Formats: sequence, structure tokens, C-alpha cells
Amino acid sequence: MRIALDAMGGDFAPGPIVAGAVEAVRDQPELTALLIGDRERIEAELAKAHDAPRDRLPIVHAGQTIGMEEKPVEALRKKRDNSISRCWGLLAAGEVKAVVSAGNTGAMVASALFNAKMFLPGVRRPGIAAIFPSHQGPIVIIDVGANMNAKAEDLYQYGIMGAIYAEEILGATHPRIGLLNVGTEDEKGTDLTRATRALYHVSPWASRFVGNVEGRDIYEGRVRVVICDGFVGNVLLKAGEGAVEFLFSTLREELARMLPELPVGAGHRIAASLHALKSRFEYEEFGGGPLLGIRGACIICHGASGVRAIKNALRVAHALAEDRLNCRIVEQLGAKLTGAADEHPDSSSGAHE
Amino acid sequence: MRIALDAMGGDFAPGPIVAGAVEAVRDQPELTALLIGDRERIEAELAKAHDAPRDRLPIVHAGQTIGMEEKPVEALRKKRDNSISRCWGLLAAGEVKAVVSAGNTGAMVASALFNAKMFLPGVRRPGIAAIFPSHQGPIVIIDVGANMNAKAEDLYQYGIMGAIYAEEILGATHPRIGLLNVGTEDEKGTDLTRATRALYHVSPWASRFVGNVEGRDIYEGRVRVVICDGFVGNVLLKAGEGAVEFLFSTLREELARMLPELPVGAGHRIAASLHALKSRFEYEEFGGGPLLGIRGACIICHGASGVRAIKNALRVAHALAEDRLNCRIVEQLGAKLTGAADEHPDSSSGAHE
Repeated sequence: MRIALDAMGGDFAPGPIVAGAVEAVRDQPELTALLIGDRERIEAELAKAHDAPRDRLPIVHAGQTIGMEEKPVEALRKKRDNSISRCWGLLAAGEVKAVVSAGNTGAMVASALFNAKMFLPGVRRPGIAAIFPSHQGPIVIIDVGANMNAKAEDLYQYGIMGAIYAEEILGATHPRIGLLNVGTEDEKGTDLTRATRALYHVSPWASRFVGNVEGRDIYEGRVRVVICDGFVGNVLLKAGEGAVEFLFSTLREELARMLPELPVGAGHRIAASLHALKSRFEYEEFGGGPLLGIRGACIICHGASGVRAIKNALRVAHALAEDRLNCRIVEQLGAKLTGAADEHPDSSSGAHE
Repeated sequence: MRIALDAMGGDFAPGPIVAGAVEAVRDQPELTALLIGDRERIEAELAKAHDAPRDRLPIVHAGQTIGMEEKPVEALRKKRDNSISRCWGLLAAGEVKAVVSAGNTGAMVASALFNAKMFLPGVRRPGIAAIFPSHQGPIVIIDVGANMNAKAEDLYQYGIMGAIYAEEILGATHPRIGLLNVGTEDEKGTDLTRATRALYHVSPWASRFVGNVEGRDIYEGRVRVVICDGFVGNVLLKAGEGAVEFLFSTLREELARMLPELPVGAGHRIAASLHALKSRFEYEEFGGGPLLGIRGACIICHGASGVRAIKNALRVAHALAEDRLNCRIVEQLGAKLTGAADEHPDSSSGAHE
């Protein structure tokens, strides 16, 4: 499988991006990662990996890079030869099956939305899914930033796409879907949440939908899929990162204060534990968030992505583009539109999660 | 000063509520806490505190209690003799200066909003402020749940009320105000965020307003006041609680695994540190969130409030009701309405935080 990787996207690009691609193609013999960006700089990074399988790491030159802080739409218009647009162009032309970038998220999403032909049939608006940790294991929150003006129909579709993603990638069985809200009672929230509830209750997915969940239910893992509009999801994602960063830096200070009182060894042991613990919150395992609802696959990585995140993003992009995910999304969104009872998502089983 | 305390509100009421009141009146000789609720049950709790200054702990009987999970508006209509409505009735009648409750938040807010005469002059909709920790010390987020359909004018007022609260209660000087958004660029976000930005830029508070802030900026403490609509704020507040709970319970498990390898003493030392650290995230210091924009003062406490939270809530309610907070809010909201340049909030100083 051929995947286009934006070699110029990310806070530390192209170094860890290219290194991540090298590791990924080494691990996956069937993978070819097209490195999109400044040929000279990519060559320089590839030269550092002596035994890289260069035949599966072709470079596609793009002369311009969209910076992390640039205004997406403006940058896409002005920089016609940018690496992000080049990635999407390759996907649209069928030359790759997936795109991966740790670059400007807004530009990645805007570039995808420009071309509605890239949407899967029946999809109103693609949405970004993110993985959050919980007491019950990883859960999916969708949308975390693609759609700032979501309608109830969009949230409905996000729930379906998120549930199929949870099944195919997280291995969940009959994942339950919850609507992020300010309380559990039916009438809580906004016009959007009430309309979304109403839509679910008459849909083939009604049995998967548990209704409202609150912010604190996320980490409890009450449901495997949490749906919300892109504004709330994005604020939540970034605030979660901020909270984890704040907590661990405070813990490290506390540890530093304790160290002189602890026996040698114990301090290191604790520091190592903290480090391991923190990595559980860093989502590197999944490399980034997929933009669901498009043809092929797209993974949007964190700007600070390192080698491991990029490598995992390529692995997940591979899995998303290869497996039944998109077929199932199209099938289930179609089921909604016709409302056919025999297309009930749980028709094959009476057991729920 | 007389304050009405909903003795029946909270997960563990009336025990810790009454105990918190006893401690508060002991500490503050000028405070009288009216205990509102079931006379018999309150008497039983008071009997446990042998030397309680009973003359400053009068009981006002209310025969009904609104449960934490009851639907607010319905419960208020059906249970006419509930303790929350009794508290607000006392405030409206001028018999107390403030109300405090750890009960059903929705009922507290709905009860306040029922009576627009309780709003301060010029206030469109009261908002709940919450304290979050940050690298720069405590910050204020407003609104965290009073207003699900906020307009730009509401968010504008929340910023002003939050800033005055930060000055009067947190001791901030020239607190800066940020608008919670999904990116820092002007055009980011929703119609609501764009309209709010526009409003600030032509207001007397323009110099205090730094524009958009993101979720991760909260914990960095980039600004002292973060404004958002009540839906986003409430989700954020509860998700933050959930994240902290999840992190600390994971840390405790990790610690339990390490304990056998650590010398006796070190484990206890670490456990104590963790406990102290966690308390920094529990907002008990401020007892709860004030509903800003009403005559007098109202503190809405966490449902799980213990003795210390209630005691602190009474202290903060006292401070809010006594000091210049409401006068300044009325003055500054009036300044907005007339747009008079000489009412500029920073006219007395050229220095900003």
C-alpha cells in the first residue's frame, strides 16, 4: 500500500517525520511511504538512515511548506505548491490510499473539505476522531475540530463513524455511543444536543445510543464513543493535554523536592514510573486522529509528533485504508437514510457491550 | 452578615453542611448562617457540635429537598417548600445577603433566573465562575453552566464580571481576559466567538482582552480570566475533574505496585505528597463557584462538598456580598452601555498584568 506522508508537517519536521517513515516501511514490507516536501531536506534526513529501503521511500517534491501558525485557507490559496495539498492531490488521483500529516491541522482539514468528491457517499461532513484514555481502556471522541458548525445530522454520523472506528481499530465489540452534554437528563443542553438525541432515538442505532454523558464520564469509560461538535471537542482535547502536562510537571517538582529524602534507586524508579504513566496519555500509540468520512484514509498527527508517533500513524493509516472501515461507514450511513430495520447494526447479535 | 445555607443540598447533606457552618461562624464572629432545611435533621447535626454558637446558627424549616438528580424546573414547580427556593426567597426579601448551596446546581440557577429582579442592573444573564489551577496560580473560567444559549453580549459581560471577581477575590491586578477558542487566529471558531471578539475590540475593556486562547492555555495561565459559553465551560469543568480523578487513581495504583520495593517511610511520604497535590485541584479553597451578576452573592458548591468546602464557601460568600464586587460590576457594565472613554477600566494605571 502507498501512503503519502507530509514530510514537512510538524514542529520538528522533517527529521522525526522521515525517521518515522523509515521505521514504518522497515516494519511493514507491504508499505510504501511517499515522502512529500523539500527534496533536498528529505534526502539529507534519509541519508542518516543508512539501510533505509529507499525503493519504498520515494520523494515527491513540494516547494512550499505551510507553517503551524499560518491561517489555513489563506496559506492554501497563496502557497499552491505546498506539501499538504500535494498529499491530498495524490489521494484524489488514486496514487496513494492514505495521507498522513503532523502539520497545520486547519490546512489538512480545509484541504480535505475543499473537495467534496473526497467524501464517502452519504457523509455530510468528515470529522476528526481522537483517542482518550479511560478506566475501561481507550475511547473515541469525535469530532475534535473538523466541524465548527455541526448539525444534529453531523453528530449522528459522527457516532456511527466513531463506533465503526472503535470496532475496527480499538477492537471494541458493540461500542456504546454517548452524547457529550451538561447533564444526563433528556432535556439538558442545547438545541443541537436535543435534536441529536431525537435523531438517534428513531434510528437503527438507537440501541447503541445511551443518551447524554458528562465530562467526567469520559475518563470513567462509560461509553466507547463520545460525540460532540468540533468546537467542544477541540477545546476538550487541548485542555486535556494541558491538564496532563500541568499535572506531571507539578508531580516532577514534587518528586524533585522529595528526592534528597529517598534512597538512591527509589527516586529513579519513581521517575521512570511517572514517565511510563505519562506516555499513556500521549496518544502516540495511535499516532494521531483519523479524519473519518473520506475516501481512503487520513491521519492528522500532533504537531509535536516524534518518530514513534509517525510510525504508528502510518500503521493505523494502513489499517484504516485497508480494512472494512469505509465500506461499513457507507453501508451504515445508507441504512440510516433508508431507515431499513433489517440493517440494524446489532442485527447479528443480541448482546451489547 | 446573614447568609442562607441550604443545609439539605449535597451528596452527604446535612452532616458536613451543618458542620461547615459551625466552623464558619466560629471563625467569623460577624457571620450568621441560617440553616435552611429539615429542622429535625439539622437539630440532630447541631447537637453533635457541643459548643456551637447556636444564636448565629438559626434554623429555617423547609419541608422538602430537591435531589441531586431531579429535573430542576420540574422539581422547583412540584416541591414548593424546598430548601433552595427558601434560600432565594430570603435573599429576595433582603433577610440575608447571600445564599450558599451544594445541592442541585440546575435548581439553584433556575431559581435565580426565575426572578429577573435578582439580577444586578445591566446584567443580561448571570454566569457561574469556576477556579482552575494554572502554572501562574488560580484562574477564573466563566460561564461553567448557567447559560446554555449565550450571546456575544453575555460573554462580554462574563469577561468583565470574571475580571472583577479575579481582582476582588484572587487579588489579581489588571487581569487579562481570553476567549476560549480552537485557535489563536482572529477568524477561528464560531459565529459566537467572532461576535464576542468584535464586541471587545470596540469596548472600554479592549486593552484587557488578549483575544483567543486555546484549551491548553488554561493551565499555562496565559490569562487570568477565560470566557466561554456555559455548555463548553460545564463540559470542561467536569472533564477536568474526571481527568484529575483518573490520573490520581492511576498514580495510586502505580504507587501500590512500587511500595514493596521502597523503604518504609518513603511510600508514606509519597502518598502524603500525592494527597496534598490532589487537593490543589479540588477547588475546596474557594468552596465553589459564585453565580455572578445577581444582587447579593451566591456560591454554588460541588455536590461532594465536605466541611472545609462549605466553610470556605461561607467565607467567600461573605467577602463577595460585602465588598465592592457588585458595585464595580454595575459600574463597569454601565460603562459599556454608554461607551464612555473615561470609564476605561485601566484609566487609573498604565501597567497591565
